Amino acid sequence: MNAKTRLSPGDTIGILGGGQLGRMLAQSAASLGLKTHIFCPDPNSPAFDVSATFTVAPYEDIDALDRFASSVDAVTYEFENVPGPTAAHLDAKVPVRPGVRALEVSQDRLFEKQFLSGAGVAIADFADIASQQDLDEAVARFGGKGVLKTRRFGYDGKGQQMIRKPEDADGAFEKLGAVPMVLEALIPFECEVSVIVARDLDGGIACYDVARNHHENHILKTSTVPAGVSQATLDAARAMAGKIVAGLDYVGVMGVEMFLVREAAGERLLVNEIAPRVHNSGHWTQDACLTSQFDQHIRAVAGWPLGSAERHSDAVMENLIGFDADGWHEVLKEPAARLHLYGKAETREGRKMGHVNRISEKS
Amino acid sequence: MNAKTRLSPGDTIGILGGGQLGRMLAQSAASLGLKTHIFCPDPNSPAFDVSATFTVAPYEDIDALDRFASSVDAVTYEFENVPGPTAAHLDAKVPVRPGVRALEVSQDRLFEKQFLSGAGVAIADFADIASQQDLDEAVARFGGKGVLKTRRFGYDGKGQQMIRKPEDADGAFEKLGAVPMVLEALIPFECEVSVIVARDLDGGIACYDVARNHHENHILKTSTVPAGVSQATLDAARAMAGKIVAGLDYVGVMGVEMFLVREAAGERLLVNEIAPRVHNSGHWTQDACLTSQFDQHIRAVAGWPLGSAERHSDAVMENLIGFDADGWHEVLKEPAARLHLYGKAETREGRKMGHVNRISEKS
Repeated sequence: MNAKTRLSPGDTIGILGGGQLGRMLAQSAASLGLKTHIFCPDPNSPAFDVSATFTVAPYEDIDALDRFASSVDAVTYEFENVPGPTAAHLDAKVPVRPGVRALEVSQDRLFEKQFLSGAGVAIADFADIASQQDLDEAVARFGGKGVLKTRRFGYDGKGQQMIRKPEDADGAFEKLGAVPMVLEALIPFECEVSVIVARDLDGGIACYDVARNHHENHILKTSTVPAGVSQATLDAARAMAGKIVAGLDYVGVMGVEMFLVREAAGERLLVNEIAPRVHNSGHWTQDACLTSQFDQHIRAVAGWPLGSAERHSDAVMENLIGFDADGWHEVLKEPAARLHLYGKAETREGRKMGHVNRISEKS
Repeated sequence: MNAKTRLSPGDTIGILGGGQLGRMLAQSAASLGLKTHIFCPDPNSPAFDVSATFTVAPYEDIDALDRFASSVDAVTYEFENVPGPTAAHLDAKVPVRPGVRALEVSQDRLFEKQFLSGAGVAIADFADIASQQDLDEAVARFGGKGVLKTRRFGYDGKGQQMIRKPEDADGAFEKLGAVPMVLEALIPFECEVSVIVARDLDGGIACYDVARNHHENHILKTSTVPAGVSQATLDAARAMAGKIVAGLDYVGVMGVEMFLVREAAGERLLVNEIAPRVHNSGHWTQDACLTSQFDQHIRAVAGWPLGSAERHSDAVMENLIGFDADGWHEVLKEPAARLHLYGKAETREGRKMGHVNRISEKS
């Protein structure tokens, strides 16, 4: 639904997904005087505890979706794998923000790369892979190396295979499920960085500072701001993020992951991936900025103007993954740390249980 | 209940009172991985929207209180007029923090003044008033001036009468309801200031910076930090606040209101009133400190160590009272402002609907 609907305090935002991102979105909505209605198939969703209303139903349950749509004034989501028909069905009844196009583009790595390339954003070379033969040819073209990824449903390193020498490609198409894939040229990058960017209904854009991300076991472990990049790199990151959200006529917060490549000529950024939602690498904004990424997203979804993306402090965000969270009591003793826990009933290895923001005076 | 009970993430804090303070406490509890259960007689309580569980029942409903007590691991409250028998009944089953003594002292202005005086804290002269004759004698003793206040149930200027000349006292005892009262000597103060202080289960104390408070129509309008007082005054304010919470063996956050008196010899502070709860004049801590007063109170009630009370920014908190809140859209346009709305269904004159924190670089 393309209507320029703007919400007022007291109105309700529907959120698809009841994990920690939905939970923190619901908390921001409440602080801004908005109600939320969480829709999630999991009856133990942590977001339910902080929301006025919730629905437990599959994303394909049309009757439940209809009741949900009629109870809310706008819909957003906490994850990019919202089924296309679900988003389209809701969008016919109530504004879905960010829009259906953002989902289509970000759910498919090939569409994503084609969009980014067309928007004039620097990315690594890529090839469309529909067979082992496609893969063998592309690996040869990319110097015997590359990263093979399924086009859909990959996250936290799943649905990927690293190819460091041509033999690594042998049988890889079958091994990853013989589904549509892309091969990305292997980039010798120094680190991954990301920016959180937001765009409002009137096209206003606000972009946070660049964070330097460190992963362990393919899961984000820390995000550090400032990232230690040059002003020119920072400007380039923001310019690319702005092109992406403008190109999608996007409304809401987006996470843009980039590779920082260091060459003789200097630093250079390549966009790796976009996430059409609040992003783990933006959790530092909760305690180092007046407007957190969650507040920012809610403002955009409500059709309100964006807040400032300035930060008042330096920050290091650390994810508490699995049994890391058992150290909550030690975190509470640190004067410069703020603990965030997601209220998940069960601790499991690899599960994101919470995070810590450690802040210090702005450098 | 005096047990040194300490909560763990996933445990539940019961909150008596479902207004904006209960709501913001519930939001902080959720961020720290704790659940809340709100108990409030008003079926339209704004705190219900952000809490996992709620009970609508009168504070005198023993069965409801018993069910509530058995569902929570500790109890706190958002208002000081919790009926004494309610607090005592709950405290026999589950830790009530801050304790029953803090309620007894703060519910009665005479007990409060006697306690403060005994704790070695500077206060204005006062007299116990049980009759018109007591009043006439005390007014004469205080130079024909004073502020007459009922001992119990006064707030936002209610239950008070200013006496500027002896004739103002005529019939005043009858007029205020012929209930027990106190007369306070009239202090020519420059302004009201306040500090938010917290004490944990192990006696650790953290005290925020002094705020300068400005009232309109007897309701707090703004709190400004820094307050523009000397370091010595700041130290004195913190020292008095520390004596008060230590003297009450207090656990939780307390608001301490003081008069700033300017004399030839310099500044001097007199404690006016204590509130055994999070306090409106501490809302600035949400956006100018890493640990807000709400987080701090939840930490104390959970038996956890306190967070730092340092601030990273200067701040001015402005209350949005009644139809002030209709200006929410203008507030959203200010880059240095953060809007907080309480989700109250109905706007009424004099009703606290929200607040704005405007922050700037620490001076």
